Amino acid sequence: MKQRIVLALGGNALQKNGENTAEAQKEVAKKIGAVVAELADQYEIVVAHGNGPQVGNILIHEEIAGTNEAPAMPLETAVAMSQGQIGYWLTQAINNAFAKLGKTKKVATVVSQVVVSRQDPAFKNPTKPIGQFYSEKEAKALARKNRWTVKEDAGRGWRRVVASPKPIDIVEKKTILDLVENGTIVIATGGGGIPVVRTKVLKRLKGIDAVIDKDFAAEKLAEEVKADIFVSVTAVSNVYLNFGLRNQEKIEKISANEILRYKKYGYFKAGSMLPKVEATAKFAKTGKIGIITDANHLKSALKGKAGTIISAS
Amino acid sequence: MKQRIVLALGGNALQKNGENTAEAQKEVAKKIGAVVAELADQYEIVVAHGNGPQVGNILIHEEIAGTNEAPAMPLETAVAMSQGQIGYWLTQAINNAFAKLGKTKKVATVVSQVVVSRQDPAFKNPTKPIGQFYSEKEAKALARKNRWTVKEDAGRGWRRVVASPKPIDIVEKKTILDLVENGTIVIATGGGGIPVVRTKVLKRLKGIDAVIDKDFAAEKLAEEVKADIFVSVTAVSNVYLNFGLRNQEKIEKISANEILRYKKYGYFKAGSMLPKVEATAKFAKTGKIGIITDANHLKSALKGKAGTIISAS
Repeated sequence: MKQRIVLALGGNALQKNGENTAEAQKEVAKKIGAVVAELADQYEIVVAHGNGPQVGNILIHEEIAGTNEAPAMPLETAVAMSQGQIGYWLTQAINNAFAKLGKTKKVATVVSQVVVSRQDPAFKNPTKPIGQFYSEKEAKALARKNRWTVKEDAGRGWRRVVASPKPIDIVEKKTILDLVENGTIVIATGGGGIPVVRTKVLKRLKGIDAVIDKDFAAEKLAEEVKADIFVSVTAVSNVYLNFGLRNQEKIEKISANEILRYKKYGYFKAGSMLPKVEATAKFAKTGKIGIITDANHLKSALKGKAGTIISAS
Repeated sequence: MKQRIVLALGGNALQKNGENTAEAQKEVAKKIGAVVAELADQYEIVVAHGNGPQVGNILIHEEIAGTNEAPAMPLETAVAMSQGQIGYWLTQAINNAFAKLGKTKKVATVVSQVVVSRQDPAFKNPTKPIGQFYSEKEAKALARKNRWTVKEDAGRGWRRVVASPKPIDIVEKKTILDLVENGTIVIATGGGGIPVVRTKVLKRLKGIDAVIDKDFAAEKLAEEVKADIFVSVTAVSNVYLNFGLRNQEKIEKISANEILRYKKYGYFKAGSMLPKVEATAKFAKTGKIGIITDANHLKSALKGKAGTIISAS
């Protein structure tokens, strides 16, 4: 029986030299497609992905060009748009990688809603900057008009900031599991998922403007699809202690508790290695394997021969 | 056993009084959700939908606000974005309609690529206007720069026109069928599908800027999912002969060959009733039932008591 893996692709995984055209991103997607098609002989595969640069550009276009006749879409809907966009590129790239091998395989992107809690403390302190830069005056006017929170961003201007709440459920989880069990390679929870809240009494879903960390959403997905291995695919082969310093130390095999101890001591940067370490360690604690590595080392990491491999103990 | 139906929702089905905000479109989606949830006791349901107003607005935003840093997405990718957007709204509306009934049911949007032929005669004579209006000079400059075809549009200015080729395959058809057979309500081939061509030798897929008629794509989908009934849901209860004239005549039950004879005599308008008549008659010819009606008459039409019902003979 094949092992089941969830690959969480970094938000910048489709970028190369910062090139943002559809053509450039499709070229990068080709390489991801080749990796997935190669692994599919041995593994059942679910792909999750970030959407930082893509949803950023969608929001910028919507904010700049939105009018009464053609209104700007809100962030939650923009996330859905980015799922269609990136999901299409990845699906096609994986389709074509199989075609190149003379094989056919079912591949599909499922538009995914991810439930968060309105009581999540993140909503009290929004920190995630999105969309374009404004002057202080413009930003404050938009904040009043649209009920945004705005903040000054590192001397570069003012931006809207939104909350980054934790995922608590994936609305389409059963459908995604059905597909995986049917032999389909599924692309899901793109950009961390479309953030929705679920009302208590009536269980109604409602979109909410927020950004869910894609590693946390992908980890939740990995639990729901009963994955054996969860991989956070990033730009470096391993997690390091003291990264970039002379005494940097590569982490190869480690227990969830041990890497979480390093986390507690502040070894990993928020918005960078921190969520990856938290998500993979959380998954490892369920008795499975969490891996952090880059695309080049993915295959050997899955064999236990590269990357940072996190296990329950 | 439940009968299986494919509902093709008109491109303007999410519009009310031309209001285009996400909130307004979600309100209209609510009503569609209620209809689908009500029908789900008796039918297995697949939903296809148009995307005219939505992809139009996406393209306008992309064209106006696209820059080197945040480049405009091409039409084929914009279709994928609109599938994420509308699919999300419909999925959530159907989820909530079930929640209101105290039920849960699997609902999912599958991002759908639809194959067309580069040899389709439509590519020789593009007729479908998309995106914003330009002056003649601007339009011709853009045509040179982007290899667009542009045309003067009814005295309102110049616009890009693209081909509307016939759908010949749905890339995700097996996945969609798996889901339907698993009891999932599926939303697929949104906007007629993301138009792709398939290379002859290597069977590689490649996006192509075009607009596939949503009724033709939905009819193809109905064949692929082995539907019993295909319904083109539009703004009027029935197809009429001499529609709007004093001698207008409502069509209730009719054979595929008979309605196609009326078509031949020019009774139905291109871009309006014509594709719906062609698509439902094509489906009816497979020995199943094709229906054209509006949302209010859908339930009785499925019982044979309203709408225009087209059968093989």
